[in-house]
Amino acid sequence: NTSKLPNVASSIFSVMAQMAHTYDAINLSQGFPGFDTDPKLHALVTEAMASGYNQYAPMHGIYSLREQIALKMNTLYGSAYDPENEVTVTVGATQALYTAISAFVHQDDEVIVLKPAYDSYEPAILVNGGKVVPIQLEAPDYKVNWKVVKEAITPATKMLIINTPHNPTGTVLTKGDMLTLEKILENTDIILLSDEVYEHIVFDGVKHESVAKYPRLAERAFITASFGKTFHTTGWRTGYAVAPKYLMKEFQKVHEFSVFSVHHPTQKAFAQYLKTPRHYLALGDFYQRKRDLFLDLIKESRFNMTPSSGTYFQLLDYSEITTENDVLFAERLVKEKGIASIPTSVFNLDQEDFKMLRFCFAKTDETLEQAAEILNAI
Amino acid sequence: NTSKLPNVASSIFSVMAQMAHTYDAINLSQGFPGFDTDPKLHALVTEAMASGYNQYAPMHGIYSLREQIALKMNTLYGSAYDPENEVTVTVGATQALYTAISAFVHQDDEVIVLKPAYDSYEPAILVNGGKVVPIQLEAPDYKVNWKVVKEAITPATKMLIINTPHNPTGTVLTKGDMLTLEKILENTDIILLSDEVYEHIVFDGVKHESVAKYPRLAERAFITASFGKTFHTTGWRTGYAVAPKYLMKEFQKVHEFSVFSVHHPTQKAFAQYLKTPRHYLALGDFYQRKRDLFLDLIKESRFNMTPSSGTYFQLLDYSEITTENDVLFAERLVKEKGIASIPTSVFNLDQEDFKMLRFCFAKTDETLEQAAEILNAI
Ligand SMILES: CSCCC(=O)C(=O)O
Ligand SMILES: CSCCC(=O)C(=O)O
Repeated sequence: NTSKLPNVASSIFSVMAQMAHTYDAINLSQGFPGFDTDPKLHALVTEAMASGYNQYAPMHGIYSLREQIALKMNTLYGSAYDPENEVTVTVGATQALYTAISAFVHQDDEVIVLKPAYDSYEPAILVNGGKVVPIQLEAPDYKVNWKVVKEAITPATKMLIINTPHNPTGTVLTKGDMLTLEKILENTDIILLSDEVYEHIVFDGVKHESVAKYPRLAERAFITASFGKTFHTTGWRTGYAVAPKYLMKEFQKVHEFSVFSVHHPTQKAFAQYLKTPRHYLALGDFYQRKRDLFLDLIKESRFNMTPSSGTYFQLLDYSEITTENDVLFAERLVKEKGIASIPTSVFNLDQEDFKMLRFCFAKTDETLEQAAEILNAI
Repeated sequence: NTSKLPNVASSIFSVMAQMAHTYDAINLSQGFPGFDTDPKLHALVTEAMASGYNQYAPMHGIYSLREQIALKMNTLYGSAYDPENEVTVTVGATQALYTAISAFVHQDDEVIVLKPAYDSYEPAILVNGGKVVPIQLEAPDYKVNWKVVKEAITPATKMLIINTPHNPTGTVLTKGDMLTLEKILENTDIILLSDEVYEHIVFDGVKHESVAKYPRLAERAFITASFGKTFHTTGWRTGYAVAPKYLMKEFQKVHEFSVFSVHHPTQKAFAQYLKTPRHYLALGDFYQRKRDLFLDLIKESRFNMTPSSGTYFQLLDYSEITTENDVLFAERLVKEKGIASIPTSVFNLDQEDFKMLRFCFAKTDETLEQAAEILNAI
């Protein structure tokens, strides 16, 4: 019984969360909000249960939620996804990513992944017998070198995965990136998988460049997103994928036999809640204030940083503090200083170490102040 | 972009549910309860949300729920699963099945499937590049011919899937079946995948023979089950898998990168609710009364039947009514008579047609009475 994932250990998010717990440290490692959901949203779930929405939801999601998703994509990005055939509600963005990969990656197909990368992409490719073609983004600015991407394309390239705003670096792809990508992909039949879970969390007037805004990309793309990141409900496991019908058709086959459908009362709640766009339109400002507070609080520290442009993560460069590798340094910070972060080398090609730790600033002001006190003393 | 599932159309459950809706028919097709969940369970979910359990649950499930599952397996079947390493909470049993298959079935591995079979097994095998080795169970009694199973084993056999109580036939495996299976599997390294979602729904004093009761089977087995079937919450997408650690380790790798974790407040609710075993121990009697009512109501009809021994499904043999194939007959019953069922040939090898329709009797007495009125007039 040979393992399909011999090199996969426990997720770094679980490892660090566990360590934070053991050492009673402030936990800025795994990305989740340290404050609660809008009670209105709880009430909507309760109402849906009481109204009897407790049996199987339709496989691809309840229609009213798919409609709201299509409407949002249209309002924000000018795209025209058909709720009937081009939108699927998923068990968080994680399942959307896994299903898109499973539906299309055959034995020995190649998938280009930009590193550092969120840690679920590669196992999903490997479980399906595919080959990961990793391309490193270089610190400190982590721009994509599109020439290198272009050169990595072979006849076996089935898919390219992008992620904007980017976890863990906090960078965003620009209009220029998207136009270059259009050129690279034209005349290929490569599928684009665009992880846009942080779509509403962009700062400093930056606009999120969704693939949905670029028809020549969108016609070959899955876009995946998450209500967990947007509504502070990472534990409710609800996200979605959109794609043109010819792609979504194959996605839905795998979806229906791998999870069948998504938590019904939660879907009801989100369908209602999405009718008030202010609930997500305010998110960028909300998190920009958090980022600004955090960076201001640690401006006298010995860490160096380029302010994050999106996501709720901030990379801190500790190269002026120690030459320790980032895994050891992160472990030492939990054990000796009482603060947990994510060492970024675990997401890099060949675990390359840029002396960068990732901190999640989706926390209460109080937690950020306590964290800053520790970081300033390092 | 060749499809991994070229022959997969929409799930028969969705097709029939849709038809039932279109023709305003009584829907005894897809298996789900036609009555509601215990309001206590709703209240527990609401309480969990209010208490702030809205961010990521631990990947493998909250510990208190895994503990309750292990305890239940121990009390009912005398097995000793370690909650820490041998229990995983999943997005319904569907995800548990899909993940077990994905973690172990490599390109060209063979998986033996007893037909008729629940419709998710085969696509899961095919997506992972495996080969389905189907073995037909013969109407009317649908017993397993273990000699045929034994002969189907080759060096490429990676897995055998069983399902007891069995959907769609309502048969159960006996102690004799299990002892024979032990002999067949000894000295092989075939993984046993045992779908036991209807474990609590057995009738006429029959005892559910869980694989967990047979250590020589359990040592190589995944057992999958569902809270949806047990607590009338099919729409809450919560189930689980248990397996020995060396198997569960590989399962969890795929689990964490394909769904990460399960709806947190719902897990909290089930962990609490499971503390009262009466909530599931009463289920067999509850559904036996439904089955008896249904069969009694249609005893003068022209359908023939062997009473179901488990599940909430009853097969009805219509060979004395018409020679039409079961798909056409089922369609005609929806359109002309206003009652929806599942044609069983869709689950058979080569779609073999035994003139059997499956009816779900997990409905209110009133619905069953209305259904019987229609069936008696056919
Ligand atoms: C699904 S757990 C990881 C949460 C997250 O997105 C992150 O911390 O990067
Ligand atoms: C997951 S939808 C199918 C429900 C069911 O188990 C059945 O009807 O057989």
